[in-house]
Amino acid sequence: MDERPIGVFDSGLGGLTTVRELCRLLPEEDIVYFGDTGRVPYGSRSRETIIKYARQDVAFLRTFDLKAVVIACGTVSTTALDVLAAENELPVLGVVAPAAQAAARATRNGRIGLIGTQASIRSGAYERCIEQARPGTQVLPQPCPLFVPLVENGRFAPGDVVIETVAAEYLAPLKQAGVDTLVLGCTHYPLLESVIGNYMGPGVTLVSAGAEGARAVAETLRERSALAGGRGRGACRYFVSDRVEDFSRLASIFLGWDVADSVGQVEIGRY
Amino acid sequence: MDERPIGVFDSGLGGLTTVRELCRLLPEEDIVYFGDTGRVPYGSRSRETIIKYARQDVAFLRTFDLKAVVIACGTVSTTALDVLAAENELPVLGVVAPAAQAAARATRNGRIGLIGTQASIRSGAYERCIEQARPGTQVLPQPCPLFVPLVENGRFAPGDVVIETVAAEYLAPLKQAGVDTLVLGCTHYPLLESVIGNYMGPGVTLVSAGAEGARAVAETLRERSALAGGRGRGACRYFVSDRVEDFSRLASIFLGWDVADSVGQVEIGRY
Repeated sequence: MDERPIGVFDSGLGGLTTVRELCRLLPEEDIVYFGDTGRVPYGSRSRETIIKYARQDVAFLRTFDLKAVVIACGTVSTTALDVLAAENELPVLGVVAPAAQAAARATRNGRIGLIGTQASIRSGAYERCIEQARPGTQVLPQPCPLFVPLVENGRFAPGDVVIETVAAEYLAPLKQAGVDTLVLGCTHYPLLESVIGNYMGPGVTLVSAGAEGARAVAETLRERSALAGGRGRGACRYFVSDRVEDFSRLASIFLGWDVADSVGQVEIGRY
Repeated sequence: MDERPIGVFDSGLGGLTTVRELCRLLPEEDIVYFGDTGRVPYGSRSRETIIKYARQDVAFLRTFDLKAVVIACGTVSTTALDVLAAENELPVLGVVAPAAQAAARATRNGRIGLIGTQASIRSGAYERCIEQARPGTQVLPQPCPLFVPLVENGRFAPGDVVIETVAAEYLAPLKQAGVDTLVLGCTHYPLLESVIGNYMGPGVTLVSAGAEGARAVAETLRERSALAGGRGRGACRYFVSDRVEDFSRLASIFLGWDVADSVGQVEIGRY
């Protein structure tokens, strides 16, 4: 048993979809979340800048006594996991390997579509993991640079003509290529599940990197006998680098519950 | 005569449209430009964060011996000009008052449309200046939160279905209200001039905040006898907070000339 909290971070709001899944799977865990709302998005920035920001995010989270750090961000998982894992002695868990393995299990025709930020697609990390899990699989990568700005602006509802137009543009080549599995390689994308699912049709299995990441965290902690337990529901605390109020409004949509009383602000540039 | 350079800054690439205009009007001036590409966009962030970032931007520029600072950013001009002007003894010039005065002169029917970032519209700064320049003018404000992410992603060409769709959504109420003048209140928007002009039609005068700001800078320096001169073409140096290469590629489109050899990187969080 390990009663220490799990640290979770993302460039902004997307990682909350992973928190939601973690709370469902491990309701007794304490969670400390950091969302870098003052510097979102990450996915259009350079590798060097993503690594610098991710190091600061982890440094802030580690001011708490954590049992693990979860990178609930596709961009950081693809681009900085190795660096962060090498620099920290506690487990640092990303979303790439779990999502790649789930996609490899799900595909029947061996053609997997992959959507993510520019940085994630540039890294080639998902492709490497899928190749390892199921050699010879054809992976079709598609960067979707506008999805994070759209989601962070609340533009994710089916019927919204802007998100439908952008989604159709990005997804058309994957649909045309006949993928039967699509990796949502960014933790913002579960908010677009309806839009993406409607466009791709019922024959395509959607694999959410954030949800698979959460499942892998639960498994890792169980294997290490590091779960909390026997004390009732855990507590979630949230920290952001921009204004608390702006975060609280959208966060409840991502999570499905209200966070207003448990959000604090952090000067992340100092870490 | 004052041979010192002019400092110019923006959240990202947009301010380059102002640099282009400055170079046209004042070809003998030296310019130092800073674009905060590691933290762009500003317009969706809180007032507090915008002020914090703008202070760091000015602090970096002032490591050079400048004769004036130009805020080539609609968001910072509307939200932080007063703070920055009070804290610095050299002239700090924004784009709001010049654009408001130009719009007040241009309108015939007294109905002016105003587009800008969320922060700019929230500030009410343009409305106050227009009311001062032409009392009783009706101003119709419209936040356009997706324009900066779209422009920074290179999505500004007429015929691009995404930008056309987003533009139509934002501009429809202004067109319907019969504005005869439209203030482009953000220095990224000149890249959208064709898309916006095509949608609004030839009867609507577009007023570019960045270009009006540049004209006001020229006038202020002339009045103060602080122009450089008699030594040929001035030099432009550029600094950014993310990778130099990523900036150089798009910057040439904004400026109309190549900048590759004169760009440096800055750790802006340290200022």
